[in-house]
Amino acid sequence: MQAEVISLGTELLTGASVDTNSAWLSDRLGALGVPVRRHTTLADDRDAIASAFRESAGRADLIVVTGGLGPTQDDLTRAALADAMGVELVTDADSLAQIEAFFRGINRPMVASNRVQAECPRGATPLPNEWGTAPGIRAELHRATLFAFPGVPREMHAMFERYIVPFVVERGSGQGIALRVLRTYGAGESNVAEQIADLMPPGRNPAVGTTASEGIISVRIVAHAESQPAADTLANADVAEVRKRLGTLVYGADDDTLASVVGMLLAERGQTVATAESCTGGLIAKLLTDVSGSSAYYVGGVVTYSNAQKTALLGVPAEMIAAHGAVSEQVARAMAANCRERFACDHAMSTTGIAGPSGGSDDKPVGLVYIGLAGSDGVSVREYRLSDRFSRDAIRDRSAKMALNMLRRSLLGLSAE
Amino acid sequence: MQAEVISLGTELLTGASVDTNSAWLSDRLGALGVPVRRHTTLADDRDAIASAFRESAGRADLIVVTGGLGPTQDDLTRAALADAMGVELVTDADSLAQIEAFFRGINRPMVASNRVQAECPRGATPLPNEWGTAPGIRAELHRATLFAFPGVPREMHAMFERYIVPFVVERGSGQGIALRVLRTYGAGESNVAEQIADLMPPGRNPAVGTTASEGIISVRIVAHAESQPAADTLANADVAEVRKRLGTLVYGADDDTLASVVGMLLAERGQTVATAESCTGGLIAKLLTDVSGSSAYYVGGVVTYSNAQKTALLGVPAEMIAAHGAVSEQVARAMAANCRERFACDHAMSTTGIAGPSGGSDDKPVGLVYIGLAGSDGVSVREYRLSDRFSRDAIRDRSAKMALNMLRRSLLGLSAE
Repeated sequence: MQAEVISLGTELLTGASVDTNSAWLSDRLGALGVPVRRHTTLADDRDAIASAFRESAGRADLIVVTGGLGPTQDDLTRAALADAMGVELVTDADSLAQIEAFFRGINRPMVASNRVQAECPRGATPLPNEWGTAPGIRAELHRATLFAFPGVPREMHAMFERYIVPFVVERGSGQGIALRVLRTYGAGESNVAEQIADLMPPGRNPAVGTTASEGIISVRIVAHAESQPAADTLANADVAEVRKRLGTLVYGADDDTLASVVGMLLAERGQTVATAESCTGGLIAKLLTDVSGSSAYYVGGVVTYSNAQKTALLGVPAEMIAAHGAVSEQVARAMAANCRERFACDHAMSTTGIAGPSGGSDDKPVGLVYIGLAGSDGVSVREYRLSDRFSRDAIRDRSAKMALNMLRRSLLGLSAE
Repeated sequence: MQAEVISLGTELLTGASVDTNSAWLSDRLGALGVPVRRHTTLADDRDAIASAFRESAGRADLIVVTGGLGPTQDDLTRAALADAMGVELVTDADSLAQIEAFFRGINRPMVASNRVQAECPRGATPLPNEWGTAPGIRAELHRATLFAFPGVPREMHAMFERYIVPFVVERGSGQGIALRVLRTYGAGESNVAEQIADLMPPGRNPAVGTTASEGIISVRIVAHAESQPAADTLANADVAEVRKRLGTLVYGADDDTLASVVGMLLAERGQTVATAESCTGGLIAKLLTDVSGSSAYYVGGVVTYSNAQKTALLGVPAEMIAAHGAVSEQVARAMAANCRERFACDHAMSTTGIAGPSGGSDDKPVGLVYIGLAGSDGVSVREYRLSDRFSRDAIRDRSAKMALNMLRRSLLGLSAE
């Protein structure tokens, strides 16, 4: 069984909204063993929608449509589906009663335009919607079964569980599918890909691919097989092979972040960490405390965004800043060492650098960052020179990730990189 | 001129990534007067991609393709475009030289697989990419001009400005279109929409709509007219009317954030701010320092994630914490007052709350947050109770925004809300 997803709504095509429904549906359908082959997003144009329905029905077994079921004149799913089926729209009495009941339930008057939401192409099946006003629709179109749901994520999610999950289970996807994601940090995408190139030829099963997002290179493994256990076995073998090849570049899997992995390693060891941030301005603290339970190992931190505060809060000697500059190996070292001491914790990370876009010089250009790490065996500082192609956001993001990765490698007893 | 956007990448069809490029492109093309009629997202399947290129070229004048230009075997844009054009791939010497230069510039070895990124369909034009390794491609296909860019947003954005903007301007979109966005904070979407409902009927020009994202309600105004000045005049009249209706709920326009607006207000007044964060864990500091030039008014902050640090760093009496709890009006007040004093600045913000998902009690449930604001005329504290439907991320995000909005209103001499 193969699926396509169609999203309707002019707001998606003006850039006013990002289409998150398609990603959600793809994730859920994939987990049910139904690969999604195409997303199509269309504006509110009845002919274009009807022809897209017909085209998809020629390729896919399952079509999920979101949006276009509201009460206004630019909600065209019902009419376009009737066109594609070559039938007329009829009013469904049960749907109308449910819409009327919905408005009674929320103590609001039902306006006349809501009546059109009870219409359905002749021969299609209205799908009751307990979570909002618009009923969904199920229809057979060529070789495909089409489900149309409202675009409101909460209603769409509930209707997916109610109507599509049983449909897929009943049909039996006939195959197992296993998805695995490994997360790496510290090497570029082409470098990672080269180490596993022989696993990546087109058409191989499992399919192995890499993606890059903000410095994180992910390796995705998708295995298909006759059964779920067989797909899991295939995928797990590739996971083991990729881990062997990439070694400690792999910091985690699935939803792991550098901060969550560092947190887990600290918790396992009963150790604590504090942060002393300049150029990252609180970002490392934010990333650490994104993780629920981080108060077990994260004691706190300071953001010393001015020279005076580096001295006042962290005891970095003013003479040191005057002699070497705030962005220097010496200041990063003092920030980390003094932070560890003042917070009385096992580890402390420090950052000082030039995030730009202004503030750089020939000697100390935008992108120059020093990261300090203090632990029981002393302080180490690394200098990074990020390309001037990086934005302010990217320089701050990579600096925070490099600091977290330095701590991760230190906790694992590895060299700095 | 009408456009279509095609996004390539299996990660988009497994739900692993949300396609934000299509929304960005639609927004930018719309602003240039080029409506986008369709988004199509495809997995890494050469035949499906080639046939989608051909189909789009039969409908649209401009096709923008993102993704599939990387160095690996699942990057199929080059090959599929050659198929659709009925030509072969050739290596472009200039592109190869630029890729080699890029790797020299970042001091990394170029691996052999990067050579394929210099390939281009015969008759198409390689587009230099100064921001990454993969050159883009411009090709004529049936009635359409197709631009293929890397999927990395930073590179794609830069190449859009370099190559598509001049192309559209040269062709002339033939009509004026004006987009305006006003940003509001402090009221729900239905509340905002109710105050401007008469401006929002379908078919009205300008089209006025609201969208909600992470507590920010945006009002979008899109005006069409025969000429750009006429469209601007229409849009500006609605901007004035919406601002009049919504008053101080409007904190800014376009790309303004609460942090950037607060920064501007502080800079205008020559005043400074510091932060004392518990539940937001560095997020307010991060948001303030996202803004370039923030060192002019942000002096620094502390993240006191443990009770001991609230006492050690901020002088919050341990007895006060014992008597009232760390999440209390009293502690928020002491954190803000002492932070302002220790950092010797004009304003200080504090947060203490329960971000969850664990750590709540009947008395102090998840979502309870106290926000303190200290200034020259004393300290005010507000208590917020966010619904238990909010995630940890959302509670932290809203707490940071409420703190920034409190400071914004105070700087403008407005009541707390």
